[in-house]
Amino acid sequence: MGLRLGDIAERLGADLLGDPDYEIREVCDWHLAGEAGEGLLAFETRSRPGAEFMASPVRALIVAEEPGAEVREGKHYLVHRDPRLAFAVVAGLLHPDPRAVEHFVHPSAFVEDGAQLEAPVHVGPLCVIGAGARVGSGTVLVAQCHVGAGTVLGRDCVVQPFAAILGGAVLGDRVYVEAGCVVASEGFGNARQDGRFVRIPHLGKARVEDDVRLGANACVDRGALGDTVVEEGARIDNLVQIGHNCVVGAHAGLAGLVGLAGSTRIGKRCLIGGQAGFAGHLGVAADSVIGAMTGVPSSLEEPGFYLGVPARPARDTKRMWAAQHRLPDLLRRIDQLEKRIAELEGDA
Amino acid sequence: MGLRLGDIAERLGADLLGDPDYEIREVCDWHLAGEAGEGLLAFETRSRPGAEFMASPVRALIVAEEPGAEVREGKHYLVHRDPRLAFAVVAGLLHPDPRAVEHFVHPSAFVEDGAQLEAPVHVGPLCVIGAGARVGSGTVLVAQCHVGAGTVLGRDCVVQPFAAILGGAVLGDRVYVEAGCVVASEGFGNARQDGRFVRIPHLGKARVEDDVRLGANACVDRGALGDTVVEEGARIDNLVQIGHNCVVGAHAGLAGLVGLAGSTRIGKRCLIGGQAGFAGHLGVAADSVIGAMTGVPSSLEEPGFYLGVPARPARDTKRMWAAQHRLPDLLRRIDQLEKRIAELEGDA
Amino acid sequence: MGLRLGDIAERLGADLLGDPDYEIREVCDWHLAGEAGEGLLAFETRSRPGAEFMASPVRALIVAEEPGAEVREGKHYLVHRDPRLAFAVVAGLLHPDPRAVEHFVHPSAFVEDGAQLEAPVHVGPLCVIGAGARVGSGTVLVAQCHVGAGTVLGRDCVVQPFAAILGGAVLGDRVYVEAGCVVASEGFGNARQDGRFVRIPHLGKARVEDDVRLGANACVDRGALGDTVVEEGARIDNLVQIGHNCVVGAHAGLAGLVGLAGSTRIGKRCLIGGQAGFAGHLGVAADSVIGAMTGVPSSLEEPGFYLGVPARPARDTKRMWAAQHRLPDLLRRIDQLEKRIAELEGDA
Repeated sequence: MGLRLGDIAERLGADLLGDPDYEIREVCDWHLAGEAGEGLLAFETRSRPGAEFMASPVRALIVAEEPGAEVREGKHYLVHRDPRLAFAVVAGLLHPDPRAVEHFVHPSAFVEDGAQLEAPVHVGPLCVIGAGARVGSGTVLVAQCHVGAGTVLGRDCVVQPFAAILGGAVLGDRVYVEAGCVVASEGFGNARQDGRFVRIPHLGKARVEDDVRLGANACVDRGALGDTVVEEGARIDNLVQIGHNCVVGAHAGLAGLVGLAGSTRIGKRCLIGGQAGFAGHLGVAADSVIGAMTGVPSSLEEPGFYLGVPARPARDTKRMWAAQHRLPDLLRRIDQLEKRIAELEGDA
Repeated sequence: MGLRLGDIAERLGADLLGDPDYEIREVCDWHLAGEAGEGLLAFETRSRPGAEFMASPVRALIVAEEPGAEVREGKHYLVHRDPRLAFAVVAGLLHPDPRAVEHFVHPSAFVEDGAQLEAPVHVGPLCVIGAGARVGSGTVLVAQCHVGAGTVLGRDCVVQPFAAILGGAVLGDRVYVEAGCVVASEGFGNARQDGRFVRIPHLGKARVEDDVRLGANACVDRGALGDTVVEEGARIDNLVQIGHNCVVGAHAGLAGLVGLAGSTRIGKRCLIGGQAGFAGHLGVAADSVIGAMTGVPSSLEEPGFYLGVPARPARDTKRMWAAQHRLPDLLRRIDQLEKRIAELEGDA
Repeated sequence: MGLRLGDIAERLGADLLGDPDYEIREVCDWHLAGEAGEGLLAFETRSRPGAEFMASPVRALIVAEEPGAEVREGKHYLVHRDPRLAFAVVAGLLHPDPRAVEHFVHPSAFVEDGAQLEAPVHVGPLCVIGAGARVGSGTVLVAQCHVGAGTVLGRDCVVQPFAAILGGAVLGDRVYVEAGCVVASEGFGNARQDGRFVRIPHLGKARVEDDVRLGANACVDRGALGDTVVEEGARIDNLVQIGHNCVVGAHAGLAGLVGLAGSTRIGKRCLIGGQAGFAGHLGVAADSVIGAMTGVPSSLEEPGFYLGVPARPARDTKRMWAAQHRLPDLLRRIDQLEKRIAELEGDA
């Protein structure tokens, strides 16, 4: 069951150079295509299609600019200003997230009394759903998931194996939770007495809004008293740590191994590079870009591109990085300067 | 079932200004309180309570100093030198860790022959307990936990879903294991032969002493021959990696994404910031503070506050950080100095 | 059931000074040995055995050089140029990875119709094996594992609890998957439209070749269109993130918390220190060593030892690190130089 090129073009608002009835069954990277290319759609951002593409069995291609007549024979083109985006949209139509259409609870799953499943819900084998949990319609618990007592999952969510949605978690609609992800873990909040930790029970929620995607083995702590919030559309990569009472702004993206200490506020649409760290109790302006491995010790009030430890405007840090390896040489030059001046002073 | 303010005051050693019979049902952040405040207890460290608190429905507050008469009407105060600590204690009384009081093994759990459960133990749905494992009384395996063959868990432990207590793990009493945590994984110990790895089987234990709390998706490797040890009262945050044969000292705290390479010895009561890393085969003096993202390549013999990559006394690193962004300018100044001196030398 | 020293010597190609019929039951660290030493084999790399070893109950030792006659009485020596490697080999013989010899599927496991198990396979309690999955003979799924629909596992693999082998994963023979590890998670690939993320479905494989070992809670994303590949014999430590379309070369070793952004290519036999990060779309030359916490922003074409953020030849970075703490002092010296020159210029 494929998609007609004409329908795709209309959906994308793309210009079609080719047969609107050509049917697309699958997407591919045409550089990797084997012998079979019929029904495949690829995209190209780097260059205009040429002889190499003409020799490829793939016949349909999304491109940014209208291709010349010499590459039209036997090929179909969708012209779209952002081929990668257009490709993502088509791939998403062909491969939507799974969604429950028939109500199903595997006999090996354990659903505690008082859990509310809004049919149709798919509960795979060996899942546990605790008392008072509420799961919205369309949601798929793939297998071996944990949905704790009192949690809330919206509609059309997908929860992969070994994801733990613990008590205190509240998920919106269309939230995707990758394998091993933990939502609403106890935060790292402690008081100290005589050199020993005194645990602070965490009573706030971990609220994950609509259309958020949480990566494998990522952790979202619940708030201490107020809530931890991941706002709508945010994308959290694998192994990210989101501490108690953090707020991740809508449509922000956090790459792998990022760490947010408690009460960090990441602005909307921020993009955070891998392994960056935030000291907590600080805010980052909306639409900022934080480079990989950057360490942010205090608030970044102005939107910008920040880099380095501690974080500075990226241009400054790059200049510093370029200069720092001249330091040993610099030390030598200053020693010499001091000698030469001393000589001049002796002469004077 | 609440707590009388008078009893709380006695328990905390706090002064009570108010009604000892006022009953506390719950703790809260009074800045976040809604319309209902009766029965709630909050704390305040930053400022003395004023008009804003008088307008709040919350009636009971822990403060550091005795408040003035103008904020007493209809309010109850507990005066304690450390309001946050006092608050943690009360919150802990209202929200203790779960504890098994009736012996219960869910029918869907699989307890292998030869496992010893010291009643009462709570074994939730879909747990696995291996042969020869010993679980102390009061311990709660929430659900979908793995307790491997031959492991030992003490009394009053709590194990959350998808926590894997593998063979080689020995846990003391009141250990809390958050979801997805792995205890006694194989260490990253290898020999090499002709450019290939030769696995070293790990035969040591992973010993986790009393009152330790292990975070979500954290990993504690078992020792190669000797043991890995997390001493009593230590607090390990989410996604922390503790390599084989490490020793984490009593009451030390390791924040998220910290990495300890093999045979790192963290001293007692050390506080380690997020994403800090330790090169292994080194020790850190007790009571040290290691800043976030610090890289420790060799032993830190003196207790202190260390920061930076490589780690240095924090004051030095902060000074260096302040100076480093002047480097490009410095290079320019030295170029000029050299020119000016050359001119002077020409003159001389 | 032990091993004769004579057989061990032959297997290792080591010289034996002692009784070939002495039987080894277990390996140990002789520094940690208690009262019982009979049947134990230890190794020593640091020093030649002396009085301390003579006083130890351990009787068999692997050493690098032939020991003197004064330490021979009652002891047995294996002389091998690399005692640690020799020890690893013997330990591996005594403690091989588990392997299925009888076909066994625990009644609580759920094996979907159409999954192919090549007997003998061991499927422990509460495992899930999806439709169309293929599992090779000898493979052990310890307990509570997830083997997704359509995945492929080779022969003699070991999968620990809560490891998620998701759809798109293809594992070779003798692959070891530690607890909580996720293979073939969705990659962090997104397009953006009007400040919102548009998900890119990940359709490539996550291919893990023969003899790879994947650490606890490590993540290997599947490729977007092409595949993510971990080549044969590579060793991935705990909490490592391997992004979509990465290639980890054969026999490479990645220590804990390393992060590879998408399309990173790590050369064969590279050794990567803990918490190092790679920006993606770059390659690292075979046989390179990357220090802990190093940040690699672009390709490293020459094999070498690299260190620092951004990565540079280790010697340069170490020199820079040694110099950088003189920066504040340097600033002071340059201020003074400028003053002194101004005075000289005034004089001139």
